[in-house]
Amino acid sequence: MTKDFKKHDIVIIGAGPVGLLLSVCLTRWGYDVRHIDNRPVPTATGRADGIQPRTLEILRNLGLKRKIMAYDPARVFEVAFWDPAPGGKIVRTGTWASCPSFLDARYPFTALLHQGLIERVMIDDLRMNGNNVQRPWTITRFETNNADPGYPVEVELKNLDSNVTDTVRTKYLFSGEGAKSFVREQLKVPIRHKDPISHVWGVMDGVVRTNFPDIKMKCTIHSDHGSIMVIPREDNMVRLYIQIASSTDPDFNPRKTATVEEVQAAAKHIFEPYYCDWDRVEWYSVYPIGQGIAEKYTLDHRVFMGGDVCHTHSPKAGQGMNTAFHDAINLAWKLHHVESGFASRSVLSTYETERKSVAETLLDFDNKYAALFSTRQPSSSEVSSASNSSTSHHTNTSAPEDENPFVAMFKANCEFTAGYGVAYGPNIYNHSAEHTYQHPLLLTNHPKLRTGRIMPNSNATRVADANFVHLENEIPCNGSFRLFIFAGLQSSAKKGEHKALSDFATALQAPTSFYSRFGWADEERDTHHDHNNPHTPLFSLALVVAARRPEIEVSNLPELFHDYAARVYADDVWQKAVPDAKAPSHAKTGFEGDEGGVVVVRPDGHVACAVRLVGKETVDALEGYFATFLDKTGRKARAREPKFGLGGGAQRVRAQL
Amino acid sequence: MTKDFKKHDIVIIGAGPVGLLLSVCLTRWGYDVRHIDNRPVPTATGRADGIQPRTLEILRNLGLKRKIMAYDPARVFEVAFWDPAPGGKIVRTGTWASCPSFLDARYPFTALLHQGLIERVMIDDLRMNGNNVQRPWTITRFETNNADPGYPVEVELKNLDSNVTDTVRTKYLFSGEGAKSFVREQLKVPIRHKDPISHVWGVMDGVVRTNFPDIKMKCTIHSDHGSIMVIPREDNMVRLYIQIASSTDPDFNPRKTATVEEVQAAAKHIFEPYYCDWDRVEWYSVYPIGQGIAEKYTLDHRVFMGGDVCHTHSPKAGQGMNTAFHDAINLAWKLHHVESGFASRSVLSTYETERKSVAETLLDFDNKYAALFSTRQPSSSEVSSASNSSTSHHTNTSAPEDENPFVAMFKANCEFTAGYGVAYGPNIYNHSAEHTYQHPLLLTNHPKLRTGRIMPNSNATRVADANFVHLENEIPCNGSFRLFIFAGLQSSAKKGEHKALSDFATALQAPTSFYSRFGWADEERDTHHDHNNPHTPLFSLALVVAARRPEIEVSNLPELFHDYAARVYADDVWQKAVPDAKAPSHAKTGFEGDEGGVVVVRPDGHVACAVRLVGKETVDALEGYFATFLDKTGRKARAREPKFGLGGGAQRVRAQL
Repeated sequence: MTKDFKKHDIVIIGAGPVGLLLSVCLTRWGYDVRHIDNRPVPTATGRADGIQPRTLEILRNLGLKRKIMAYDPARVFEVAFWDPAPGGKIVRTGTWASCPSFLDARYPFTALLHQGLIERVMIDDLRMNGNNVQRPWTITRFETNNADPGYPVEVELKNLDSNVTDTVRTKYLFSGEGAKSFVREQLKVPIRHKDPISHVWGVMDGVVRTNFPDIKMKCTIHSDHGSIMVIPREDNMVRLYIQIASSTDPDFNPRKTATVEEVQAAAKHIFEPYYCDWDRVEWYSVYPIGQGIAEKYTLDHRVFMGGDVCHTHSPKAGQGMNTAFHDAINLAWKLHHVESGFASRSVLSTYETERKSVAETLLDFDNKYAALFSTRQPSSSEVSSASNSSTSHHTNTSAPEDENPFVAMFKANCEFTAGYGVAYGPNIYNHSAEHTYQHPLLLTNHPKLRTGRIMPNSNATRVADANFVHLENEIPCNGSFRLFIFAGLQSSAKKGEHKALSDFATALQAPTSFYSRFGWADEERDTHHDHNNPHTPLFSLALVVAARRPEIEVSNLPELFHDYAARVYADDVWQKAVPDAKAPSHAKTGFEGDEGGVVVVRPDGHVACAVRLVGKETVDALEGYFATFLDKTGRKARAREPKFGLGGGAQRVRAQL
Repeated sequence: MTKDFKKHDIVIIGAGPVGLLLSVCLTRWGYDVRHIDNRPVPTATGRADGIQPRTLEILRNLGLKRKIMAYDPARVFEVAFWDPAPGGKIVRTGTWASCPSFLDARYPFTALLHQGLIERVMIDDLRMNGNNVQRPWTITRFETNNADPGYPVEVELKNLDSNVTDTVRTKYLFSGEGAKSFVREQLKVPIRHKDPISHVWGVMDGVVRTNFPDIKMKCTIHSDHGSIMVIPREDNMVRLYIQIASSTDPDFNPRKTATVEEVQAAAKHIFEPYYCDWDRVEWYSVYPIGQGIAEKYTLDHRVFMGGDVCHTHSPKAGQGMNTAFHDAINLAWKLHHVESGFASRSVLSTYETERKSVAETLLDFDNKYAALFSTRQPSSSEVSSASNSSTSHHTNTSAPEDENPFVAMFKANCEFTAGYGVAYGPNIYNHSAEHTYQHPLLLTNHPKLRTGRIMPNSNATRVADANFVHLENEIPCNGSFRLFIFAGLQSSAKKGEHKALSDFATALQAPTSFYSRFGWADEERDTHHDHNNPHTPLFSLALVVAARRPEIEVSNLPELFHDYAARVYADDVWQKAVPDAKAPSHAKTGFEGDEGGVVVVRPDGHVACAVRLVGKETVDALEGYFATFLDKTGRKARAREPKFGLGGGAQRVRAQL
């Protein structure tokens, strides 16, 4: 009977940020993705709007950033604080960089753009790769059973226009339905409320007419008449968040509401002595928000959940969409590795442990954030000291850092709100002194290469085309582990006399190495234009040579790198953070001595481990590390014809499904 | 009878780069533009493809760069030279930066993208502003007559599908038809051939399969079997230019042609010892090219021509489209000023003098370029010295500059090919010691503020939203003169105690000043969201204060600047070119002492004049300068509702037509 059912690799419910990004990744990598959403059309207006600095890097890595920036989002570099002054007026007490220089962000700003435009870019990407979101469809039933062990999940879908139902079988079901999740309810996964306080928020997007001087800044305004958060938006718009009620109010009613006019009147009062009128309102909503976190993200590693299904919190920290993106990428590559036969199913458990831990941190942060901005009003002197140490992100002044507890908390918050606080703890992927595998060449507790965090960014010159590039983003989000090989200062690689490098390359190419075991099954596969996965879908290499570009001849490098010609870089770009370094990228990444190293970066951009580059022993160390989670035998992957979409001849992998 | 004719402000023939950009500008500024093209659909493939560094800045100023970059063009940073080696092989003799650091370009690369995608961005912009290109229409007749003096040009247009004709009257007719121009032929404007040598070129776009190491670089390959130029393109494509015949050949035939297979075979031979096969050919063309320049760009200042209509040359220097863009912008603002009553018709004569002079330079350059690359093959040592002084555009090494004649010519060529060689000579707009008006405060022969060239770029922080910005591009291409006011190091502007600045502001606001005389006619006009033209369509101001952003309070500045709140900048961004400057933007622009200055920049981005900032006398000096070409009485302009399109609340002006 089940043979009549359509079969999919994954069914994704919901086309918000988490569902779309998961869909984009898996569709690019060649999977059969059935993606539905119960809304008849994509998000037209309102909802989330803030893209964090770290998320911009992720979008860049996905090749989507330019398409998003083409919509000219507003950019927030600083936050201004306004507090009550005598006479019922408000006064600015200080400003802070929202992404200070010590975070060393590529894009030290938050980009503000309505969610629908961000979604449109991903929907276009899906279409370009032959997929689309079916609307308006909903999920009416699902169960995991043994009727077809290869496709263990049975899902009943229903078209909300025609009432036609479609029962399908799938390997995985993913719920990105948002806070009200049918899947989560069916699974009876409880939501735990960390903070019992809940709030009713009003949010209004539109064009205002005001003489308030910071209307183009992100602002928190506390007045004797209430509080508002101001967020600048694209097209001369602004978003105002207004807290309408809190469960700490004596007469709290979670269904409390307010009309547009009431909220506008409240805002007008808060903005005094400045005027604030509305030319037009683009979107308006009032909704109750309670902090909550799902106890489980999956029960059986077949039905997964992510995004708002798993964590809800106040919107004003701008974390929702960004967290959703991280959920999606984290799950995408792990599913890919399991379905390609690279890794055992057990690695899927790290999705929940890693992402739930971040959600817990997010809720902790949200509590502190609420406490800081809703209750405590920093004094001018505190704000001034924070401002001095933080606004130097692009100025030529730098004040000594004043580490009072307030500044310290401000810094920790900045890191988190910018997206750099996503730090995965030690586990099978993220090496540490507690990892089951140890090797003397592995660098543990390296101050710059912190496992579970991103690799420091750096600039380099791509040898093949002399392009100035951002090294950390050179290997696209292709589902592969990234091996960044820093050849070291002792390098005579340009002359082909670099023994450590050539021994490393030779050992990597040995037929039994972790690198070769997962090579393409089809040895006749055409990889001429594939600079990311010429040998294997599981690994992508990038080689950084401490020499000037004209001195590097790819044909003189070890043969391994000839197929990676577009992934060889000259470490010859001056960088302000290491002005005197002979090899700036080496220095920024953490290789300051003569010896080079290999940084293993997970497919989502987080550092897995780092190893000293000495020769064959470096491959031995990596062999041991990868053996702890990769399939022991090594399984050759079947290749699929590359699709158009990623630059640089990237391949989408259709592996052993 | 003529009253039955449709009337337009301008009829534009041809939707290539020159016609489209003229159309974009005039449509945005509120003019009735009738735009036709004789092709049924926009350019699908092939044709021009190189966007110079300077052109990227222009596109940025128009708000179009991000939309173009979203198509992921290839980027050329360096040029590689390959020459014959013993044994019939080719060998790389050196590489050069295509836009070396001494040019100080914002975007030190050429962006390569097929012309159709660039045109699409402009066609989208036209649509967004309510215009469109009508196809397939052609021009069949035109004459200038007195039947309707307000619309002196009668034009007969014909639809090539329906054969329907439409006779219209217009104030201006513009031909952007390309090298074969009906309008130019009708006007009997001769083409002068500077160099009698003509060439037949083959050009082929596609994806190649090769082990040639520089296939992602711009290359000039000379071999014993012929010459090729290699240009990388978007989507892993490459363009090859192959010279098929030259009028210096003994058996020259300008109609000589070659099949795809013949050209591919020739290329294969030239690339030896490397292989070069074609996965697919996207576009292929063989065409004769002779250098030529039109004797006149207009006969009556009513019928104008631009782009390839006026100048043809070899394609491989990548100058055609870029020169066309300059033609369009140069004409657009002058038409706008005349039709708005700001200036007398006589200023229109500067279109031909300025643009024809650049075309002459272009042809001179093209000659030298051809001589350099087609005949002379630089020795390794020469190339190496050029390479050393040039590839440092983003490296930390810098060799002493070796000024041999070869390097000097290379530098001059770089400046030209990058687009920075466009230097308009002294005339009524571009102040010099020969200008009819002189004033002691005017800065003549300033080493950095060279009139007729662009203002040095610099970074700043926008006070209103703390955004990091490119100062030189902060005032969009809105048809206005740009007054960049550098308040100077002595500035206590932040405390409102800057006498020179406040005296300057007061004098500018006097009712009889050049600034006020051209104010909006409608004093009730809503300019709340207009930060570019709050007072007048003819001028846009930007104020740069030598202080840190948090120290600047717009409300403490002279009242003039309150309506320019979004155009006030903090000069607090460290810049590598002036690492020790207290006020980096001041220093980069040329104001290194305590005193500030005002830089007048034309609507096309070229410096008109610069004045010391001392107070009312600064306005006196500007008054005298502007009086030489602005309407004496001053005419109030009628405003039109702003259209969506430009950021920052820019207004499109519908002036006195």
